[in-house]
Amino acid sequence: MKAGPSQEEVRRHNLGTLLRYVHIHGATSRAELTTKLGLNRSTIGALTADLTAAGLVTEKGQRETGRAGRPSLLVRPESAKVYAYALNIEVDRLRAARVGLGGVILDRREAERPRGMQVVDAVQPLAAFVQEMGKDVPAGARYVGAGLAVAGMVRRADGMVRLAPTIGWVDQPVGEALLAEIGGDGPMIVGNIADVSALVEHSRGAAAGRDNVIYLYGDVGVGAGIIAGGRRITGHGGYGGEVGHMVVNPRGNPCSCGSHGCWETEIGEYPLLKLAGREDRSGREAVLGVVEAAMRGDWAAQQAVRHVGEWIGLGVGNLVNIFNPEAVIFGGTLRDVYLVAAAQIRSRLNEVALPACREHIRLRTPELGTDAALIGAAELAFETLLADPLLGATG
Amino acid sequence: MKAGPSQEEVRRHNLGTLLRYVHIHGATSRAELTTKLGLNRSTIGALTADLTAAGLVTEKGQRETGRAGRPSLLVRPESAKVYAYALNIEVDRLRAARVGLGGVILDRREAERPRGMQVVDAVQPLAAFVQEMGKDVPAGARYVGAGLAVAGMVRRADGMVRLAPTIGWVDQPVGEALLAEIGGDGPMIVGNIADVSALVEHSRGAAAGRDNVIYLYGDVGVGAGIIAGGRRITGHGGYGGEVGHMVVNPRGNPCSCGSHGCWETEIGEYPLLKLAGREDRSGREAVLGVVEAAMRGDWAAQQAVRHVGEWIGLGVGNLVNIFNPEAVIFGGTLRDVYLVAAAQIRSRLNEVALPACREHIRLRTPELGTDAALIGAAELAFETLLADPLLGATG
Repeated sequence: MKAGPSQEEVRRHNLGTLLRYVHIHGATSRAELTTKLGLNRSTIGALTADLTAAGLVTEKGQRETGRAGRPSLLVRPESAKVYAYALNIEVDRLRAARVGLGGVILDRREAERPRGMQVVDAVQPLAAFVQEMGKDVPAGARYVGAGLAVAGMVRRADGMVRLAPTIGWVDQPVGEALLAEIGGDGPMIVGNIADVSALVEHSRGAAAGRDNVIYLYGDVGVGAGIIAGGRRITGHGGYGGEVGHMVVNPRGNPCSCGSHGCWETEIGEYPLLKLAGREDRSGREAVLGVVEAAMRGDWAAQQAVRHVGEWIGLGVGNLVNIFNPEAVIFGGTLRDVYLVAAAQIRSRLNEVALPACREHIRLRTPELGTDAALIGAAELAFETLLADPLLGATG
Repeated sequence: MKAGPSQEEVRRHNLGTLLRYVHIHGATSRAELTTKLGLNRSTIGALTADLTAAGLVTEKGQRETGRAGRPSLLVRPESAKVYAYALNIEVDRLRAARVGLGGVILDRREAERPRGMQVVDAVQPLAAFVQEMGKDVPAGARYVGAGLAVAGMVRRADGMVRLAPTIGWVDQPVGEALLAEIGGDGPMIVGNIADVSALVEHSRGAAAGRDNVIYLYGDVGVGAGIIAGGRRITGHGGYGGEVGHMVVNPRGNPCSCGSHGCWETEIGEYPLLKLAGREDRSGREAVLGVVEAAMRGDWAAQQAVRHVGEWIGLGVGNLVNIFNPEAVIFGGTLRDVYLVAAAQIRSRLNEVALPACREHIRLRTPELGTDAALIGAAELAFETLLADPLLGATG
């Protein structure tokens, strides 16, 4: 329970709100900012001047078409001059990007991640990517920090990767190791890949404007980034959203976590490939192979997709009963499975979910694809700046 | 995205914050308010004066024991003079109370609700309770409204009871019907019984000070009130928390909702009584009878409790993986089952939930018992006052 803010806190909050608005929506006219933020023109002008002086936004005039009169000023985030590094450790890939304020990917690198790769072996190539990309940073650009999104359970307090069973890591301070390699003035914030992807699809993507969203991310395992009441739900320590370990089939197969019949033992990569008779393969290409074979009429692939689709529908139905969301987004390899099994997923979902809980639901694929995890990782680093834009400003 | 508040909005926010603090914590010294709210003494004094003038709080001196000096002023909510009506429709009971500001139950009534009772038959006795209790209201007392908590799915927008399968109702405007009977100036706000109970155990009870809490409420069915990140999670339309319809046993028994193997088909009242060989009975007394028989060594009752305990542990494990909560509270008849099956529930939970998700979890019984649902229903009515205490004040 906290008392209301002081005048100065209100001003700082408004600076953050304006900067966040153009960060999410891109170039915006002063007129639109006035309306959207509910502040008068002179306040918007003063805030914009402060942000311009801090090198965070620019203003340029743009004549409104078909109307006489003064040109309307457009406020733009300084995407080329304020940036973060974004790093992703997925089961099969390592990705890195330099992301400008506004969520613009300015540069990117990626490499395969062989399964079983140790921490030290992931840190080196990611750090090398950062060093490479750093060579093209223009003079005077401002670095705000780095964000790392991992397909694993991350302790909110310090970014420790507690468990990433699909990657094979336990209690690894990956963020610290990376920070030691890349250096720089900014912090290294670590998050879960489904959480940060949910954040971005919620602010800029398939679920923009929706306050209750479940973003499912599938690879070998399945995790969720959950937005409820407009806010990310991550639980006490930051480990929430482990929907892949929701037991849906108590007499089912053993799971890597030690339990039986977890959702991911029915819908993850391994059961799909096994049912399709392709257990010798792995990775996203192999999953795509099954999906394409099913579309071509391959019987085993169709059976595999049907089985997985049934169980996806059941588990999504459970989540719909719990969260009453407006949108469920299928990310990672679940996107590909969803595209070929949508009707079946919807049908099973309708059996399991109560009518009131599912009545306004939309099933969606991501709009930003794998970029969501990169932009989302960068958001972890931008968050401090957006919360208080003039803190530590070099003016 | 909204801009920061004006000075006047800040003052109103602070008035609400102070009133909410004493509403939740009871009589509080000015010194403690200064510390807890982070405001200086003169601001606390001015806010208290405004709330006193509006008849919402009183101040009385109380000498601090063992210390010389000025007596510290205690700010108290005007529990006897500002009140709401609280109404509960449970599967087997109708309850009503007059609740004073501060969450003090000033008067109460209750009656059995025969299963199959129609809406109109629940409205009449509840309205009669309100009329009876109204006779003892002191002159000049201020009525803020009524809250109704129902064991069913309530549409947030207008309080429509969409589905209460355990009560046997579909699309019933119970709140409107009740308001028409009891009249009065205040609104009638309708909520779900697990949601409002969670709210109260979170603010004043077994989960005070914890931001991530699951309150399970069991009778014939099972629902949950969920607090995540300090806020109630109710989903897009208000229907979230229907954990009783999470499918945990796809090859299990048919559920009243039309699906199969929902959690409540394994842990609700019917399976417990059936497994104990008591399917001819029903209601909380019957559940208590099984629990007591199990403690006395009755074999069938022990088997029934063991079965239900296993499945409670599994379902709670699922929820722990999804929410990473600090506390799970067992309310309604689940309280009684929990008391006799705690070890087993914990053991199964530990198998299903990932170590990081469950590492700080506490399993608890409610501190406020059935009063949580009454105080919680009153909170629905107090909320408008707490959000803006001087709005519509008769001063």
